[in-house]
Amino acid sequence: MSLALSDIQAAAERIRGRAVRTPLVEARAASAATGARVFVKAEVLQRTGSFKFRGAMSRLSLLNADEKKRGVAAFSSGNHAQAIAAAACEVGTQATIVMPADAPKLKIANTRAHGAEVVLYDRFKEDRVVIGKRLAAERNLTLVPPFDDYRVMAGQGTIGLEIMDDARANGLSFDAVLVPCSGGGLTAGVATALAELSPKTQVYAVEPEKFDDTARSLAAGERIANTGTTLSICDALMTERPGELTFPIVKRHVRALTVTDDEVLRAMRHTFFELKLVAEPGGAAAFAALLSKKLDPAGKTVAVVLSGGNVDVEMFDRALAAVN
Amino acid sequence: MSLALSDIQAAAERIRGRAVRTPLVEARAASAATGARVFVKAEVLQRTGSFKFRGAMSRLSLLNADEKKRGVAAFSSGNHAQAIAAAACEVGTQATIVMPADAPKLKIANTRAHGAEVVLYDRFKEDRVVIGKRLAAERNLTLVPPFDDYRVMAGQGTIGLEIMDDARANGLSFDAVLVPCSGGGLTAGVATALAELSPKTQVYAVEPEKFDDTARSLAAGERIANTGTTLSICDALMTERPGELTFPIVKRHVRALTVTDDEVLRAMRHTFFELKLVAEPGGAAAFAALLSKKLDPAGKTVAVVLSGGNVDVEMFDRALAAVN
Repeated sequence: MSLALSDIQAAAERIRGRAVRTPLVEARAASAATGARVFVKAEVLQRTGSFKFRGAMSRLSLLNADEKKRGVAAFSSGNHAQAIAAAACEVGTQATIVMPADAPKLKIANTRAHGAEVVLYDRFKEDRVVIGKRLAAERNLTLVPPFDDYRVMAGQGTIGLEIMDDARANGLSFDAVLVPCSGGGLTAGVATALAELSPKTQVYAVEPEKFDDTARSLAAGERIANTGTTLSICDALMTERPGELTFPIVKRHVRALTVTDDEVLRAMRHTFFELKLVAEPGGAAAFAALLSKKLDPAGKTVAVVLSGGNVDVEMFDRALAAVN
Repeated sequence: MSLALSDIQAAAERIRGRAVRTPLVEARAASAATGARVFVKAEVLQRTGSFKFRGAMSRLSLLNADEKKRGVAAFSSGNHAQAIAAAACEVGTQATIVMPADAPKLKIANTRAHGAEVVLYDRFKEDRVVIGKRLAAERNLTLVPPFDDYRVMAGQGTIGLEIMDDARANGLSFDAVLVPCSGGGLTAGVATALAELSPKTQVYAVEPEKFDDTARSLAAGERIANTGTTLSICDALMTERPGELTFPIVKRHVRALTVTDDEVLRAMRHTFFELKLVAEPGGAAAFAALLSKKLDPAGKTVAVVLSGGNVDVEMFDRALAAVN
């Protein structure tokens, strides 16, 4: 079993009217700066402020009555947490979320605000997967992984469908689509949609330079883990390694690019001033790769997924102070 | 002569494909906070970062070849300036813009970046209308006023058309539409569109408390000027008095509300964290009125125009520091 376009189309039906149909915004200043024609998929306008709501809604809308009564569990650095909490409200179930204690305060607060129970753990001493699985087993909850689940990937892939719908409606043909990459759920979903709908479009997975597990795994041809001893400002992209289910899809369709923290901060600043959109570090990673010309953009038509906007004031102040 | 729905529909045709068809975003946190069902017209995503591009494009697309060769002039606190500069590029003419020397640095820089010549003046000692008219006469330029021009108003009114299109598409019926108000071009345009398309929708013009010329003029039944000795953080809304052409329309259809600087800063903060959109003070004024419950929102369906997002870092830091 793998992920098919039809799975993504079915997910689109399930989340319709619940997830936001986000706009594809022309990014004129970025076009002028890069020589490409640039469009931004403004997924920061999604419910809970990131694309994760699509996957959460796609999965939770398939719960049966008994599963809803028992509730769901998830482990997440923050965006999946908020998404599962909100989707749980939407379908009428209770969520228990395992989050690192050093996740952005905003993400923890928002997850609680959606009515979820938050269980904090130490990112450096404990394993969130182990904690999540134990909690789910003890309490008989349905565990919803952040990316290694075809129903979650299918939800994230609806972004690819919408980009293609907007391309058709506006007579655009994309040479490249850039997406921020953590475990690869968004990447695999978007790549699956585009592989069939627009096979000539190259999908790029963008990672922070210290968390370039996908880039190194693609180079090695097999899944390689990050060392896990450093941090990135891209809290949403600090995964351990590519997913077991996502990586085969990513390997088939995707190339990888990496960005530095400074490039990310400058992209957040650009997004604020030129697009009037708020991006968190991980959410701006793909846009940072474009603005820093990690691929040769001249003459190309490019779509960039701005995947999340849940950022604390302190981090945002660093971005506003960044020098262009 | 006045402004008719057909003028706005004609303007919509002229600006199609040039102005951004901005999204109407559901504002769930604002709904939860007010008891209304709240939607935000995200006009910060418009070209040049404010609604003003609509009016500028509507007017400049009507220039004939000779007028284009001679160029255009405008006076503006900043958003009309950027809009005229960008629209001038778009139609192939040269713009000369009179701006107050204390306008936000970003607005002055952006206007110049669009290739316009900027002439600065002292807001407290000189009259921008006089300077603009003199410049236009000396250089034989077409003067494009910021609001007192039916072709400009028609452009701003396209926001009303789009709100109604989205309302129809989503089965919504708006009880109220709130718009930030300076000279009244946006207010008159939107009110004209709604008066015919949705007569039961009440349009509210929202002003800073120290620049409540529209509120006082509506109470008096005639145009009354501001004293002009104080400042507001809403640099885009510091007009002298309602327009000669806008006021009769506003008087027929509109009610007025006022907001304090603190209410505006809190609305900017809310917009950042909850909507992931960047609003400038004047652009957030209408949203501030709703969030501060200046009208009784309970049970109502309300659209708010977030009209501009051109804000300097210093001002934005004040908003991020605001206490909710």
